[in-house]
Amino acid sequence: MGRMRIGFIGLGNMGSAMAANLLTAGHEVTAYNRTQDKVDAVAARGARPARTVAEACDADVVVTMLANDEAVEAVTFGEDGIVASLRPSAVHVSSSTISLALAERLTAAHADAGQRFVSAPVFGRPEAAAAANLFVVAAGAPGDVTELEPVFEAIGQRTFVVGTEPKAANLVKVSGNFLIASVIESLGEAMALVAKGGVDTGEYLELLTSTLFDAPVYRTYGGLVARRDFEPAGFAATGGLKDVRLTLEAGESLQVPLPIASLLRDRFLTLLATGGGHLDWSAIGALSAWEAGGPGPTA
Amino acid sequence: MGRMRIGFIGLGNMGSAMAANLLTAGHEVTAYNRTQDKVDAVAARGARPARTVAEACDADVVVTMLANDEAVEAVTFGEDGIVASLRPSAVHVSSSTISLALAERLTAAHADAGQRFVSAPVFGRPEAAAAANLFVVAAGAPGDVTELEPVFEAIGQRTFVVGTEPKAANLVKVSGNFLIASVIESLGEAMALVAKGGVDTGEYLELLTSTLFDAPVYRTYGGLVARRDFEPAGFAATGGLKDVRLTLEAGESLQVPLPIASLLRDRFLTLLATGGGHLDWSAIGALSAWEAGGPGPTA
Amino acid sequence: MGRMRIGFIGLGNMGSAMAANLLTAGHEVTAYNRTQDKVDAVAARGARPARTVAEACDADVVVTMLANDEAVEAVTFGEDGIVASLRPSAVHVSSSTISLALAERLTAAHADAGQRFVSAPVFGRPEAAAAANLFVVAAGAPGDVTELEPVFEAIGQRTFVVGTEPKAANLVKVSGNFLIASVIESLGEAMALVAKGGVDTGEYLELLTSTLFDAPVYRTYGGLVARRDFEPAGFAATGGLKDVRLTLEAGESLQVPLPIASLLRDRFLTLLATGGGHLDWSAIGALSAWEAGGPGPTA
Amino acid sequence: MGRMRIGFIGLGNMGSAMAANLLTAGHEVTAYNRTQDKVDAVAARGARPARTVAEACDADVVVTMLANDEAVEAVTFGEDGIVASLRPSAVHVSSSTISLALAERLTAAHADAGQRFVSAPVFGRPEAAAAANLFVVAAGAPGDVTELEPVFEAIGQRTFVVGTEPKAANLVKVSGNFLIASVIESLGEAMALVAKGGVDTGEYLELLTSTLFDAPVYRTYGGLVARRDFEPAGFAATGGLKDVRLTLEAGESLQVPLPIASLLRDRFLTLLATGGGHLDWSAIGALSAWEAGGPGPTA
Repeated sequence: MGRMRIGFIGLGNMGSAMAANLLTAGHEVTAYNRTQDKVDAVAARGARPARTVAEACDADVVVTMLANDEAVEAVTFGEDGIVASLRPSAVHVSSSTISLALAERLTAAHADAGQRFVSAPVFGRPEAAAAANLFVVAAGAPGDVTELEPVFEAIGQRTFVVGTEPKAANLVKVSGNFLIASVIESLGEAMALVAKGGVDTGEYLELLTSTLFDAPVYRTYGGLVARRDFEPAGFAATGGLKDVRLTLEAGESLQVPLPIASLLRDRFLTLLATGGGHLDWSAIGALSAWEAGGPGPTA
Repeated sequence: MGRMRIGFIGLGNMGSAMAANLLTAGHEVTAYNRTQDKVDAVAARGARPARTVAEACDADVVVTMLANDEAVEAVTFGEDGIVASLRPSAVHVSSSTISLALAERLTAAHADAGQRFVSAPVFGRPEAAAAANLFVVAAGAPGDVTELEPVFEAIGQRTFVVGTEPKAANLVKVSGNFLIASVIESLGEAMALVAKGGVDTGEYLELLTSTLFDAPVYRTYGGLVARRDFEPAGFAATGGLKDVRLTLEAGESLQVPLPIASLLRDRFLTLLATGGGHLDWSAIGALSAWEAGGPGPTA
Repeated sequence: MGRMRIGFIGLGNMGSAMAANLLTAGHEVTAYNRTQDKVDAVAARGARPARTVAEACDADVVVTMLANDEAVEAVTFGEDGIVASLRPSAVHVSSSTISLALAERLTAAHADAGQRFVSAPVFGRPEAAAAANLFVVAAGAPGDVTELEPVFEAIGQRTFVVGTEPKAANLVKVSGNFLIASVIESLGEAMALVAKGGVDTGEYLELLTSTLFDAPVYRTYGGLVARRDFEPAGFAATGGLKDVRLTLEAGESLQVPLPIASLLRDRFLTLLATGGGHLDWSAIGALSAWEAGGPGPTA
Repeated sequence: MGRMRIGFIGLGNMGSAMAANLLTAGHEVTAYNRTQDKVDAVAARGARPARTVAEACDADVVVTMLANDEAVEAVTFGEDGIVASLRPSAVHVSSSTISLALAERLTAAHADAGQRFVSAPVFGRPEAAAAANLFVVAAGAPGDVTELEPVFEAIGQRTFVVGTEPKAANLVKVSGNFLIASVIESLGEAMALVAKGGVDTGEYLELLTSTLFDAPVYRTYGGLVARRDFEPAGFAATGGLKDVRLTLEAGESLQVPLPIASLLRDRFLTLLATGGGHLDWSAIGALSAWEAGGPGPTA
């Protein structure tokens, strides 16, 4: 494809890094963020600053990387939104973790406007985004997904195509975050148990990750739980609650009971209600120890 | 240490392989099993057959690898049991997955008899036992554990020493099996969800194990769940229930609530009550799909 | 207060009975339903038939008794809705089981239009509605609630005023339905247990309801579960799921983890996914027996 | 039957009151307790003091009312225990809340000794015991149960015969305590929710107990939770944990998954681990409010 003209909307920890990597890969990037200071930082790395969503839509591809459904809706719909601003046949790539219901609505709205829509949420924390090491989960019309390969290659280490309906990618994404949270919770329980039985949790984690549990998810989150390293948040508990809620909503819509997801929802609510909403989502891994008589996540 | 004289009690799938590897490593092995046919098979590979527990105790080290607390109690206590038969200063190595309460009782009984006791449960399925690729989790008096290194090296790829009280190894073992079961359950939920949403579970698992979940536990158990490959059992559901029960007992004794372990207990009971007690324990991973309107584990 | 002019919108099992009792009490009732046949039945008992929502709003009080948020929104907002049609200072009484979020929105919309809004959901199954034996849970401005006493007296046996913000009544209502569902589930578990132990569930229920559990909720729902009497539904499982969802949404909004509500949600999803969405909501009480190897709710 | 000769073993809050009521009813009572001061108090009301279990067994009927399996085993088995001391054809009535496994063992042991055994656990708190208002749940050979009617009438307001195998009564008893605990937990969740939503929990409870939840279990336990009245304990949390454990053990033995019982076990463990083991078991009803950011049960 060569150099692509890309609008980038949403310059948080993740989005800024992704936009920077698109620039590094040689693409032309027009960057927009609700607050201007984030735009300046990316502009300093070579992006064209956009003062409105519409300006960012003067592109072949517009990528959105925002916190939740509401934020995506705010930039997509309405008079100056993406649907109203994007030229026919241009593509909206949604990398945000959004609900399946919104993915369906975006698919329909862009189709109605003669535009294209691809869901491409990513796995990886801000460090991985900075290193262009994200995993991209994409779904959409096959031709569209192929055309976007240069975008995905610029931000990630590998792309998985999981379906032709965009919402399939969102389902895989929320279920993946559910699996991460389930690892945090089960490690939290196991560590609370062995710690009270006199075993060092750092050595315990070393044993786990040297054997059957030799995976990044155990090393990363197990380390955060073992060290009680919850601040600053790589991904905040409020975001974790959102993703578990999206998983449960998908489960309700598809009629799939998800008892561990139900438990995780209660865990995140406990964490928020006791003052830990700003902590990294791995802080739910400290709740078992708290219930077992130890210090709480915010201690 | 050179050649050791080892009694081996318990020649199931795991024990037979472990005894064979001790022979391969050059040790002298006297093998006992409640049913004689298993003994013959190991004798054919060079072991001395024992007709009684006491005969197997004519050794420096006696290893027990049995199904549960009851089986270990049956060979350990009583007139012709290990405690009565083992010579002073010899070591009983328990590789079975037993309760912490029994580990405490064995520690005391052997100490009273002037003998030594080390807990050394193992992680790995029968294939790993056959390949001498087990992970050994050992706890006991430091000198005892060091002395047993040749035994552990013969059966496993790596040994983790987790404490000086034998029961610490049993705690780590049961908590590890709890973590495996929690992976099975959470994968079962996630796969039921994405499958009903039209995503191929094999490709989904490939995505998971290529990214954050790149660990043997996800590849092995995820594959069994995705393929619904529950027979023959590598480790039966009845054994899974036992290990979750041991985890919950440890949690009760140490006053640690373990909500995921509680859920797993209910899952295993459902599996047993609906006719799946003989299936591999990974079959609990099919219960979410069943509850979501799909076929049950035994279908 | 004398004779009141009342519009009544929503003539299902519950609404028809309530409208009839308002007529019996001497009030003038204009009745509206989305499908006309229900209107004819109430008209035969003396109500004035309305062909539009607006016609039903030619009244001092308009009562809505509808299935869910969507149905209430459909008749309330828009060009010909209640807000647009009701005269200033008239009152909208919402007896539907709706979300707290919608109650807030209704409160604001009617206030903006110079109208009044009171939440007055009811407890009771269709038999109780027919007998004017409902319990009314009301919340709103004190003067408004007092003024509505004749309405509440016509449909119920007792009114409880739980707050001055309308949504408080909705919170009490959804939490009450949550408590009923929790009774169904716990009875389902206990009955599955004692039945498998050889105890007759009918006698067991007689014992319970003769002692500490001597309450209508145990007699009614315990009887349905013991007799597996799930058709026709007095209140369908889909409605039960809705109310548990509203409870969980309230819990999320107020940051209160609700583990039993989470379990109930999974139970209702299992019931729906296995073909029981049309059954009475008490059918979740058959799921424990099913998981214990017995027949499912639809058997 | 007239005056019976009754040995009574176990003079705690419950047992003392029951023994006193047997005296009031005109029976001859020989009372034993592990600590002598309790015996003196009952002797002052007319009982013959026993210094040993064997002395208390010089009777037609010996009733045991003890804290748990261990306490019942301690007085039943061994050289000077009930089995060894009771005359042929005399009856041991166990009113303690014990496991089904122990009930089976007692049934067999007394049969082997030519004696009879009846399980007759009771429902009711110490106030009910004092007022002879207990509910007796009896199971055993029909003739034996009939013969014991005067005993049951002296201590309770009504007797329910639930089977001919003694353990059936224990199953009903533990399942009943499970149901009580499930009421406490669900009320705890509902009250935490409505309280955070601004509704007064006392008025909320009044509403519940005036309507569908008009039962002693809601009035008694709802009042304790609403008032946070957990000390002194009528029935301690440690006892609640024991009874939930017995329920879960029965469920495991009968292969019945019991998700609410699993949750309750975790609740009691949390309560114990955070210092509330001495509180009334209704204190688990304060855990939801604690998790929702409020004060803990011991605050």
